[in-house]
Amino acid sequence: MDFAEHDRDILTQILRWRRDVRHFRPDALNSDIEDALQQAMDLAPSVGNARPWRVIRVESPDLRKAGQEIFSTCNQAARDSYDGAQRDAYMALKLAGMEVAPLQLAIFTETAPEEGHGLGRATMPETLVQSTAMSIYSLMLTARALNIGVGMVSILDPGAMERLFDVPDTWCFASWLCIGYPETQDDTPLLHRVGWQENTQTQWETR
Amino acid sequence: MDFAEHDRDILTQILRWRRDVRHFRPDALNSDIEDALQQAMDLAPSVGNARPWRVIRVESPDLRKAGQEIFSTCNQAARDSYDGAQRDAYMALKLAGMEVAPLQLAIFTETAPEEGHGLGRATMPETLVQSTAMSIYSLMLTARALNIGVGMVSILDPGAMERLFDVPDTWCFASWLCIGYPETQDDTPLLHRVGWQENTQTQWETR
Repeated sequence: MDFAEHDRDILTQILRWRRDVRHFRPDALNSDIEDALQQAMDLAPSVGNARPWRVIRVESPDLRKAGQEIFSTCNQAARDSYDGAQRDAYMALKLAGMEVAPLQLAIFTETAPEEGHGLGRATMPETLVQSTAMSIYSLMLTARALNIGVGMVSILDPGAMERLFDVPDTWCFASWLCIGYPETQDDTPLLHRVGWQENTQTQWETR
Repeated sequence: MDFAEHDRDILTQILRWRRDVRHFRPDALNSDIEDALQQAMDLAPSVGNARPWRVIRVESPDLRKAGQEIFSTCNQAARDSYDGAQRDAYMALKLAGMEVAPLQLAIFTETAPEEGHGLGRATMPETLVQSTAMSIYSLMLTARALNIGVGMVSILDPGAMERLFDVPDTWCFASWLCIGYPETQDDTPLLHRVGWQENTQTQWETR
């Protein structure tokens, strides 16, 4: 398979127009879209081909409400760690879309997968966390190509999330994803747009 | 920006044909390619827009050799953790391409970035590791669209890598990337192809 310049340009556009979305329309997603997102996660790289991501589709209103309450507690604690103008700026940010997004996924990493037989993670168990992050990014990019937004919510207590879903001891919470049609589109990160953090370029160093 | 079905198909092909590559041709990459890879990393999501990835382009033969020696030590220790047929299978695997790949990058995560002002990582410092992993995956996908292969080497002692490059205390080693033209192309993970670990599909659970 040889890709052409045109293909690379499309990938760049998808990378460029992917945003972390917190403003969703409530319209439901059809099951084809869910299938596409699931397939995208399964195309991610993983150490030893261990594929350690575990996904719970959260449909129960009680579980959604409990997730929102954990977010609210953590977000208040985070807000209280800032002072003055920065605190006001923090309070003005919308940092989750858990009350609206039609599809919500709780993502965990299996930290002791059978699959892969331990290959490649003896010295760096963090590789499993990296694998799950990449599977989430596969989902995000595929969603964007389907004109659907994804918001990754991390202002959550991982221990509380593991207890909420009563997961096996070896599962570590990775993220809560909110997925749905976005209210708006943008090629600039919201945190840059609202002045919280500019979108700087990372310099490479040579040695 | 609305993407069409054609765009999503191209993304899926890029995801599907991306492989972790360990067999490289020695041909040098031109600087346009390096620029494209750097830009791709900078399009990755990051918590609080903190962009915590730090990149060292490793050109010094002494540093490359030292990296290979750290790999060799870790790989022997990993090999000795297997017995019998699995040990033979492990020994038959080629798990790095550090002796050939023309471009090699040591990637670190800044665990205390100024950028982002702490947003989104109070309860989950792991979000910084996730951000760096996603930036690596941006690079991998862009490389694949440019018909270039990337191999992520993790059979390395992170402490030894941090000492080798004498990085700040807040930098944590993430990965060593080998980048170059691949000897072959494949749409099936090598570890599946050689029988180490099948490419299984992850099931989603609903609650």
